[in-house]
Amino acid sequence: MSKNINNRKSFTSISKIGEFGLIEKISKQFKPSHENTIKGIGDDAAVIKVGESCIVISKDFLVEGIHFDLMYNPLKHLGYKSVVVNLSDIISMNVIPTQILISIAFSNRFSVEAIDDFYSGVKLACNRYNVDLIGGDTTSSNKGFTVSVTATGISKESEIVYRSGAKENNLIVLSGDVGAAYLGLQILEREKAVFEVNSKMQPEFEGSEYLLERQLKPEARLDIINSLKKLDVKPTSMIDISDGLSSELNHLAKSSSIGFRIFEDKLPINSAVHEFSEKFNLNPSICALNGGEDYELLFTLEQKDYDKIKHRPDMTIIGYVENKKMGCNLVTRDSKVHSLLSKGWKSH
Amino acid sequence: MSKNINNRKSFTSISKIGEFGLIEKISKQFKPSHENTIKGIGDDAAVIKVGESCIVISKDFLVEGIHFDLMYNPLKHLGYKSVVVNLSDIISMNVIPTQILISIAFSNRFSVEAIDDFYSGVKLACNRYNVDLIGGDTTSSNKGFTVSVTATGISKESEIVYRSGAKENNLIVLSGDVGAAYLGLQILEREKAVFEVNSKMQPEFEGSEYLLERQLKPEARLDIINSLKKLDVKPTSMIDISDGLSSELNHLAKSSSIGFRIFEDKLPINSAVHEFSEKFNLNPSICALNGGEDYELLFTLEQKDYDKIKHRPDMTIIGYVENKKMGCNLVTRDSKVHSLLSKGWKSH
Repeated sequence: MSKNINNRKSFTSISKIGEFGLIEKISKQFKPSHENTIKGIGDDAAVIKVGESCIVISKDFLVEGIHFDLMYNPLKHLGYKSVVVNLSDIISMNVIPTQILISIAFSNRFSVEAIDDFYSGVKLACNRYNVDLIGGDTTSSNKGFTVSVTATGISKESEIVYRSGAKENNLIVLSGDVGAAYLGLQILEREKAVFEVNSKMQPEFEGSEYLLERQLKPEARLDIINSLKKLDVKPTSMIDISDGLSSELNHLAKSSSIGFRIFEDKLPINSAVHEFSEKFNLNPSICALNGGEDYELLFTLEQKDYDKIKHRPDMTIIGYVENKKMGCNLVTRDSKVHSLLSKGWKSH
Repeated sequence: MSKNINNRKSFTSISKIGEFGLIEKISKQFKPSHENTIKGIGDDAAVIKVGESCIVISKDFLVEGIHFDLMYNPLKHLGYKSVVVNLSDIISMNVIPTQILISIAFSNRFSVEAIDDFYSGVKLACNRYNVDLIGGDTTSSNKGFTVSVTATGISKESEIVYRSGAKENNLIVLSGDVGAAYLGLQILEREKAVFEVNSKMQPEFEGSEYLLERQLKPEARLDIINSLKKLDVKPTSMIDISDGLSSELNHLAKSSSIGFRIFEDKLPINSAVHEFSEKFNLNPSICALNGGEDYELLFTLEQKDYDKIKHRPDMTIIGYVENKKMGCNLVTRDSKVHSLLSKGWKSH
């Protein structure tokens, strides 16, 4: 009997290889052996062939203290968001989600009424997106609140869009706008800090409603894939913006073996982001590029589809795909070209 | 801004309604609306129709301090067990599992090598059961180690077996033996207590290898459903023994609207269970009935199938199904009839 968590002579801290390094290390060891495993690890969702159709399936954790703070995330909103962020993974495969399973683990500080609040948010999201809750479990934990959601959708194989299909000269398109969820989080963190010093202070949320809603109650862009289907446009690649635009652009580039060029002045940024970035002394473009949690869709289109989407207010062309050897680039307002890293950029 | 976890005037402790009460409360609110949702909450797995086939999908949490103790659960075994207990849920639907997704959340006390150990166990189970790991995620947590697994399998709709199909006069059959995993846990807990007092004491595990293996490295009974298919026997109902035989018998009875009569002297109990129950001053039948975590299959068969299974050493007939109004009964060795509750029994 021994403390066998780290029972080797050498320990390597996870931070040394990072989350993506760890996932890469794991996925290398697991090669699918079943013919009907169409897509394993490495996209927003996995794909299993079932007869003439495919089931698309994704899975994500939300952990208290890491992904949410119950000081300002009401449980009802958390239930809603837990569903939405998982549906977004199915939607970003160009598939309409239809079922979810939810597991929660929670300590004895949560009451029946608290759990009811959580599930009332789940229910709202299920109704809004027309998905069935079909399973999962509830269990105790020693500490905190943890949510795991599995989402599924059915699709013809030919309609599924992967991260890996972007081609040179494709247009790079973004739905909605970016940066707002990150600023919403900054506002909540500021008000939490104020509250901890003086719990009688009234929070100052005026003018920030849009930013707060983007953080606390995001929506998945089911409307966008429905619009694309109606326009008869199939993206060549797609991913959702959960980790930030820069990071997801780099994922797309790696999966598709491409380079790209995007333009700072094309980034769709809401006026509230401009206003509040100034208050927080932040650069709005950095909020847009690195903020994360916007749950917008980032996709690439063939040039021939330009006319079909050029007037859409909910889709913005932010750049184009280049040859891999050109690298991943951001053209700033001053027309200078910078390498766009997963977080931030650097001058050439 | 407020501590909004329990923001109502009345709080009801979860323990007041229990886990099953909570699940019932939740599932009442969620009625499936999609035609292809064949089975939602309420069985070992959910069933989604895809064309001419069905996908069967289950999801389970394993939480440190609740489901396992890293003092005596090596991470490699934990990886193995996490896969197996989820495959067992698919198998208990009479379906061969083919894919899994795994998410883990862990604190910074876990090294890259520790996570490697966990995934080496996952890999062993994937190879042993021929399933593909196709997705999931890894994330930080503030405390502890949490695993969430989603397992899937494909089947014709007509071959799926539910908890709800048991009929009067059916035989009640149990695979393998029961009670060993619980005694394995008792031994590990005893040795942990000894170790905490004196870390130089050598653990006493002699003769308990079978019990320890049943606790630390259980197997899912894929062999049993394969045998049944070969024998051309389709159970009328089936469930796996995770919460204990008594508890699962009561689940079957409730889902199928039946009563039953099982016999204490028919319970398949390994000799090591007899030996160690004596050492722990426990009743072996109680270990067998209430122990849990045996991951054996409990199923019901039509009388006509009796000849096909009567000589199988891996299947034991422990009783038969009765009319609901007869209740759930255990006949003890002294021929007395007792009501079998989810935990324990009581005299009439």
